[in-house]
Amino acid sequence: MDLHILDHKLRVTSITKTGLQQYTHPLIKLIFLRNRTRCKFFSLTETPENYTVVLDEEGFKELKPSEHLQVEGSTWFPLNVVSNGNASSSSQAVGVTKIAKSVIAPLAEQHVSVFMLSTYQTDFILVREKDLSVVVETLLEEFNIFREEGGESVPVHSQDACNGLQRNVHPVLIPENQFCVMSLDPDTLPAIATTLIDVLFYSNRYESCCCCKLLFPYACSIVTIVFVFSFLLLSGELWRMVRIGGQPLGFDECGIVAQISQPLADSDISAYYISTFSFDHALPYIGYVYTVLGRLLTNCSPLLM
Amino acid sequence: MDLHILDHKLRVTSITKTGLQQYTHPLIKLIFLRNRTRCKFFSLTETPENYTVVLDEEGFKELKPSEHLQVEGSTWFPLNVVSNGNASSSSQAVGVTKIAKSVIAPLAEQHVSVFMLSTYQTDFILVREKDLSVVVETLLEEFNIFREEGGESVPVHSQDACNGLQRNVHPVLIPENQFCVMSLDPDTLPAIATTLIDVLFYSNRYESCCCCKLLFPYACSIVTIVFVFSFLLLSGELWRMVRIGGQPLGFDECGIVAQISQPLADSDISAYYISTFSFDHALPYIGYVYTVLGRLLTNCSPLLM
Repeated sequence: MDLHILDHKLRVTSITKTGLQQYTHPLIKLIFLRNRTRCKFFSLTETPENYTVVLDEEGFKELKPSEHLQVEGSTWFPLNVVSNGNASSSSQAVGVTKIAKSVIAPLAEQHVSVFMLSTYQTDFILVREKDLSVVVETLLEEFNIFREEGGESVPVHSQDACNGLQRNVHPVLIPENQFCVMSLDPDTLPAIATTLIDVLFYSNRYESCCCCKLLFPYACSIVTIVFVFSFLLLSGELWRMVRIGGQPLGFDECGIVAQISQPLADSDISAYYISTFSFDHALPYIGYVYTVLGRLLTNCSPLLM
Repeated sequence: MDLHILDHKLRVTSITKTGLQQYTHPLIKLIFLRNRTRCKFFSLTETPENYTVVLDEEGFKELKPSEHLQVEGSTWFPLNVVSNGNASSSSQAVGVTKIAKSVIAPLAEQHVSVFMLSTYQTDFILVREKDLSVVVETLLEEFNIFREEGGESVPVHSQDACNGLQRNVHPVLIPENQFCVMSLDPDTLPAIATTLIDVLFYSNRYESCCCCKLLFPYACSIVTIVFVFSFLLLSGELWRMVRIGGQPLGFDECGIVAQISQPLADSDISAYYISTFSFDHALPYIGYVYTVLGRLLTNCSPLLM
């Protein structure tokens, strides 16, 4: 399989709930008026705690500093696994499950923190710029690695670095909400603009833990929307959510995605995975939520309800 | 003819150009998400100087005080002239011309300041609450006056008050832009939401004097949009603009609308009329702009270009 290091320098930021009004102007520009910005990678995820905005440096310029904006200090690069058409290596599993053993587990063993953004079609594994050499060293065994530079894919060869292993076990929480994962052609976005603006900027619907996400990755060729089910009567697959962490997780701990994705991979259960500023979220397909729960409990993660 | 005093207590406010970002959240709510507010009368007019927002008390609650928001101290009531189907009294003229002699001139003679908002279908003459008794006294000769109260029209009878006359002559300015006046069914608004949001909140297109206006008056039954012609390729009638005032006009002077509307009425030229926080704007139909100019110059208003 091929692994691509994409040509986007990303920042991971968080906007407080009360700060949303102040950032409505730049966010609507980034979501709906993409001709007006050079931002090529944008993701907005709402959780009960805050809004997590992941965006490239062009997009980041739109967000004026304020007490309501928190910015993680590093520059992150998105990695993307591409199956190269070899039937024997292709898997039916989607989301984090597909890359659990080949990417997530080896990076966790090397103490590399990852920030996951699953989309409808693919998964982005964000790693810090400073960790890139370890990432390349760790994954070269399993992957042909390419670095995207100005539209070209340049093969990457061995470099150096290594470290040990230590892992916390985090409690998980499974809210009752059902989630809908959809993909949209960006051209259809204007048609649902007022509905999306309403849901994103004007609803106060978050009583329990849930998540609302818009993602425009990789040159804006596709939009993924994850919604709490009851709010949009659009067709789409139904998923449940497992939130990882009783306290905010921070960015430095590694192995969190591995803790969830490995038991899922062992049972061959597909799941989306969305990291946010405070917590991680795995979205298994709705019928599998209790199987996931069983697997995680076996793995000694206490359950919060 | 009938004159209705509508049941909307209005505030006249101004938002600075640099303050727009800060008010994007409430303005988008008032324009596009009217189910979320109880505001029944809303008008937004952009000029090179600022944004003039006229809205009822429910809408006014959405605008948080700040250094960027200026509020005229009075409560204003909109008057609306209704032709009562009598063919002999109906006129072909539209806009301010139709009411120049019957409403505008008599009020000017009584020193009553008016704030004009022409729409595609009708004209609203805003007067201050404290002037209502003079307005009724002055116009009872020509009109049957009704006050709308909770959906009912209650006939109004004579009251009292009177005063004298004095008039400044203001310079006028005729920018080259062409304007498009359109009416829209509010249900079609979502379909052009991203285009409107783009024009209203993200364009920097105002090099010379012009004006961009959205109006949702009287229970939101119709939306009037006045646009600089070149920005929306929608069909509509073409108008030019005559801006009145070299210096900001203020709210206390009366007779300004009369100064423009009387010569137009004398020539039977239709024109929309839009008051804003700083200046007044008459929009005669495109072919008549030089006739209007001639009439105004005869009336001794110096011309600014």
